[in-house]
Amino acid sequence: MFLKNSWYVAAWSRELGDTPLARTLLDQPVVMYRAGNGAVVALEDRCCHRHLPLSMGAVVGDDLQCGYHGLKFDASGVCVEVPGQSSVPPGAMVRSYPVVEKFHWVWIWMGDPDKADEALIPDWWWADHPDWASARPGPLYIKCNYRLIADNVMDVSHLNYVHKSSIGSLATHEFPVVTEREDGKIRMTRWIYDRPPPPMYRKAGNFAGNVDRWQIAEHIPPCFSTNEAGCAEIGHGHEDRETGGGMKIFALSAPTPETGRTTHYFFAFVRCFGLDDPELDQMFQVGMVDVFREDVAILEAQQAMMEFKPGANQIDINVDAAPIAARQMLDGMIAAEQAGRGNRGG
Amino acid sequence: MFLKNSWYVAAWSRELGDTPLARTLLDQPVVMYRAGNGAVVALEDRCCHRHLPLSMGAVVGDDLQCGYHGLKFDASGVCVEVPGQSSVPPGAMVRSYPVVEKFHWVWIWMGDPDKADEALIPDWWWADHPDWASARPGPLYIKCNYRLIADNVMDVSHLNYVHKSSIGSLATHEFPVVTEREDGKIRMTRWIYDRPPPPMYRKAGNFAGNVDRWQIAEHIPPCFSTNEAGCAEIGHGHEDRETGGGMKIFALSAPTPETGRTTHYFFAFVRCFGLDDPELDQMFQVGMVDVFREDVAILEAQQAMMEFKPGANQIDINVDAAPIAARQMLDGMIAAEQAGRGNRGG
Amino acid sequence: MFLKNSWYVAAWSRELGDTPLARTLLDQPVVMYRAGNGAVVALEDRCCHRHLPLSMGAVVGDDLQCGYHGLKFDASGVCVEVPGQSSVPPGAMVRSYPVVEKFHWVWIWMGDPDKADEALIPDWWWADHPDWASARPGPLYIKCNYRLIADNVMDVSHLNYVHKSSIGSLATHEFPVVTEREDGKIRMTRWIYDRPPPPMYRKAGNFAGNVDRWQIAEHIPPCFSTNEAGCAEIGHGHEDRETGGGMKIFALSAPTPETGRTTHYFFAFVRCFGLDDPELDQMFQVGMVDVFREDVAILEAQQAMMEFKPGANQIDINVDAAPIAARQMLDGMIAAEQAGRGNRGG
Repeated sequence: MFLKNSWYVAAWSRELGDTPLARTLLDQPVVMYRAGNGAVVALEDRCCHRHLPLSMGAVVGDDLQCGYHGLKFDASGVCVEVPGQSSVPPGAMVRSYPVVEKFHWVWIWMGDPDKADEALIPDWWWADHPDWASARPGPLYIKCNYRLIADNVMDVSHLNYVHKSSIGSLATHEFPVVTEREDGKIRMTRWIYDRPPPPMYRKAGNFAGNVDRWQIAEHIPPCFSTNEAGCAEIGHGHEDRETGGGMKIFALSAPTPETGRTTHYFFAFVRCFGLDDPELDQMFQVGMVDVFREDVAILEAQQAMMEFKPGANQIDINVDAAPIAARQMLDGMIAAEQAGRGNRGG
Repeated sequence: MFLKNSWYVAAWSRELGDTPLARTLLDQPVVMYRAGNGAVVALEDRCCHRHLPLSMGAVVGDDLQCGYHGLKFDASGVCVEVPGQSSVPPGAMVRSYPVVEKFHWVWIWMGDPDKADEALIPDWWWADHPDWASARPGPLYIKCNYRLIADNVMDVSHLNYVHKSSIGSLATHEFPVVTEREDGKIRMTRWIYDRPPPPMYRKAGNFAGNVDRWQIAEHIPPCFSTNEAGCAEIGHGHEDRETGGGMKIFALSAPTPETGRTTHYFFAFVRCFGLDDPELDQMFQVGMVDVFREDVAILEAQQAMMEFKPGANQIDINVDAAPIAARQMLDGMIAAEQAGRGNRGG
Repeated sequence: MFLKNSWYVAAWSRELGDTPLARTLLDQPVVMYRAGNGAVVALEDRCCHRHLPLSMGAVVGDDLQCGYHGLKFDASGVCVEVPGQSSVPPGAMVRSYPVVEKFHWVWIWMGDPDKADEALIPDWWWADHPDWASARPGPLYIKCNYRLIADNVMDVSHLNYVHKSSIGSLATHEFPVVTEREDGKIRMTRWIYDRPPPPMYRKAGNFAGNVDRWQIAEHIPPCFSTNEAGCAEIGHGHEDRETGGGMKIFALSAPTPETGRTTHYFFAFVRCFGLDDPELDQMFQVGMVDVFREDVAILEAQQAMMEFKPGANQIDINVDAAPIAARQMLDGMIAAEQAGRGNRGG
């Protein structure tokens, strides 16, 4: 059961051109392409005639032509031509999906098109701002439910175990975590005062001694998380964070369900320092993907075990507070949607 | 739900010898071999003792011996020997299937053996006649329901799209198609008058200018189709076709269901011209198989999509008339068989 | 439906060390390791927190630490530490299984721990006695139900067919088989008098002419079989067998169900002659595994056919007496266990 009235990341902008791209999203087969005018089109990837994926066909001008019998569909999904006959049968159309290109991603609306409001896309403005550098690795295909990924990114306690050989040093258990619920958002905050900076910060920030650090994860259902990691001179953490000072990194996380058990994991890293540092570029573009692959092994094993022993008991621990809050918020939204009580945007 | 009281192609004659051949047909495991006298035997491929496929055993004289405990079965499926004991337990037998070798194929009857009448095999006499050359490529294994193949061969409109780089030039939308229902047969006919011949005909027939052409597909349920393509001097098409003149090719199509979602696709090409032309041999033996592989990609994607979205709506277009008529005729025959109202032959 | 209150072989002793070993047994995910003191520990291979297989974690002292959030479990399965918090939530534990190391195998008790009595392990003392040489090949993973393996080892009539190119010469149909039921045991006995010894015996025993031979298979449910093959001077067979004379080989067979359709097949060969003969070592360590692989092909084909045609009829023959008796005894034990009427040991 997915939340349908929501934007989801469907692709990186760079993935789309005049060759159709097939991608299953929320159990729906979708085909995407750029029309002749450059606009992204997203259609149901199943010809309404004899079920061939339209992605096996060809883009012709602004239209998509089926590779079996040549039926042509326009950007709205309406069949506009059936070769060998003068008229198009009534009802010959496929579903079309609202799409928006923003922050270098293609966002798709999988629910009621009338509710597709661009303002509902998370405001990840750093991803498209000249004062911030971005790393945009390709999506990871993960054989797990997307919620396991949200659990993972809302919990920084696993760093010591899953990532002990890579970024485990970023973890700390000695400072408490605070979980807050806001309207449509979950926030997990940890402040670390007067401690040594991790090597990357030390080098980039020229810190001589200890620093103040913060780890702040925010989650907007159904699947959007930001992990902010920052540091500043001792005693200046809170102030700097407010005023945009200090050194900050955001990991932007947008896992899109392919099915209930597989996910297209889109993510990016943005930073406000060392914009032209190729070593940092390399670290975020390549090194952090290797770190995420450590999570992939965990997530897929978790999913496999949950499928092997469905409904098995589980106990909760303190660090689950934020992930549990995020799940509860999403459950409520899905229940409301199923009950026809509108959506986040309505 | 298959039509059981019908012949199906089970193998090429050349595939059978004294080594057992295992092949699942209509969801039934079948083993075939040649007895000592050369006759083809087809038995249930499951020992009645402990379920081992008999195809893992050995042909001993006219019998087939199980590879586990050595039980021997004769051509009628009766167990005639159990090693280590003097008598055979009552009921020790496996099912045997009527078979006929004809047109270089082994035909098997999967239903009531009493209804197995050799006269019900389609009269594809060209496949075995000295005035006709035959190409007999090995069967293609296709992961789709056999009816999708029948749809495909009864529809020549897909040539422009699926085969646009190979035989797409044979297609034409400007001449109408006529669909006829006869007793036990569907015919789709298109006549093309005064048009240039495709290159193969031009060369083989020494045509200087335009020709008359015809494309005639005939379907006999459950799965037998012929695609006749011919051409003759302008104004002589109909006459030549009647009298056996002109140049004619038949594609013989016999897709045999393995299961409801997989098919052993047997097919052959026969022609009445250029009998000794090795270039034509090559074209039909190799080139046309490559053309069929273009269909395989379509058919398997179609099947996969129909499994992913079972029961999805579909709309029909004009060129579906013949395939739909063929499906309706088969549906009626299956319903009659299920209701015990006899079969095509009874 | 498995018999739960029984020992099963879970691993070779040599397979276990300080790296966790994952193995599914009777449909249960199990992780095994050696604690710091060398004792084998077997736990449920699923963290009670978020379902990660504990086998992806690490052995820390006597405990096993989850690789996701660092929860530590002791040898009894109790969670003894949750990083980042001072107390362990109530109910935080995983199942632990009784284990015993014996005969170079790790035996696990999958049922009620209170009934786990070491005395119920089959007395295969030869496997650990200085007068006997042992070959201990790695387990074979077989895609079949474990009972098919028990059928196979309790039936020596298949040698002529499955193993005709290897040990088929050991078979003989001319001497009768006697099947006996004892309390908790099935025995199949065949005595062969005054016949030539198989080559291995002739050479190792320096026999000039014929010998007396015996083939005795014993089965203890749910899955323990011994195949004794012996030979002695003519007229001394029975006496030698009683007094421990003659030449004897035991094949010890302990197929442990992974699932209802897959099996970890543990087996060993012990002999009381040629203890230092490297040729015999090679024969049992390598050659006999190749012989068993001939069975694997049969067993997996049998299983596949039984899944393809579930519930198909089967007929029995004389050599099935012992396997059928073994199945009946096990069926009775499982029924009793399900009905709560105790177990073999109670």
